[in-house]
Amino acid sequence: MSLKSKGINAERELIKLLWTKGWMPIRIAGSGSSPLPCPDILAGKDKRHLAIECKSSKNDNIYLDKIEIEELIEFSQKFGAEAWIGARFNNMDWFFMTPEKLKYTGKGYSISKKNIGEVGMSFEGFLQQNL
Amino acid sequence: MSLKSKGINAERELIKLLWTKGWMPIRIAGSGSSPLPCPDILAGKDKRHLAIECKSSKNDNIYLDKIEIEELIEFSQKFGAEAWIGARFNNMDWFFMTPEKLKYTGKGYSISKKNIGEVGMSFEGFLQQNL
Repeated sequence: MSLKSKGINAERELIKLLWTKGWMPIRIAGSGSSPLPCPDILAGKDKRHLAIECKSSKNDNIYLDKIEIEELIEFSQKFGAEAWIGARFNNMDWFFMTPEKLKYTGKGYSISKKNIGEVGMSFEGFLQQNL
Repeated sequence: MSLKSKGINAERELIKLLWTKGWMPIRIAGSGSSPLPCPDILAGKDKRHLAIECKSSKNDNIYLDKIEIEELIEFSQKFGAEAWIGARFNNMDWFFMTPEKLKYTGKGYSISKKNIGEVGMSFEGFLQQNL
């Protein structure tokens, strides 16, 4: 399975999870190629709206470009949504964090598998947040 | 130009209009083929969110299936957005209306070019609404 299709499968899985919890999720196809900034998943429920950038990896670290995070923040501010990063390492559940929890590397951001349990929130915790 | 690409061009035009007015719009590609209900365009600005089903036609009437409108309403309620239909007849500007303004034909809904100025709202009026 290609990296790209693995990423799409991970996004689909997250969409199903959100749907089962009563959220209305949308996968924004080709979000990387749109001329306007947009996240991978947008989900809404009542008055709360989430913009989620999804990253999955079989390695020990996930890297995000600076521009990706800047666009996620810009989109979220303009649209009126919370900005979140969803990270999925092999053999682990999804973890979620806001941009300020990411580690800045000088060139971009990274998320480490080792301490994701401290930095990130579980799916349940994430949905119970109210920013 | 095919009907489909004309429809996509009309949607792109509406996305640009929304963007120039400070909205953050997203075209939901392949919205017709998603397993979950979703509109053609979703746009947000601050606390207001719009789900828009777009229809363009070179004829005098636009027809919408009952299921299309039901899904637009279902999506909007779950996501937390206002449900709108955007109609674009040849040589006319966009007009916008909420589902209850549509004429029920027994099988579905229709919008007539003749009286769209009374039934629908202009783009400016639409953005100034606060439902």
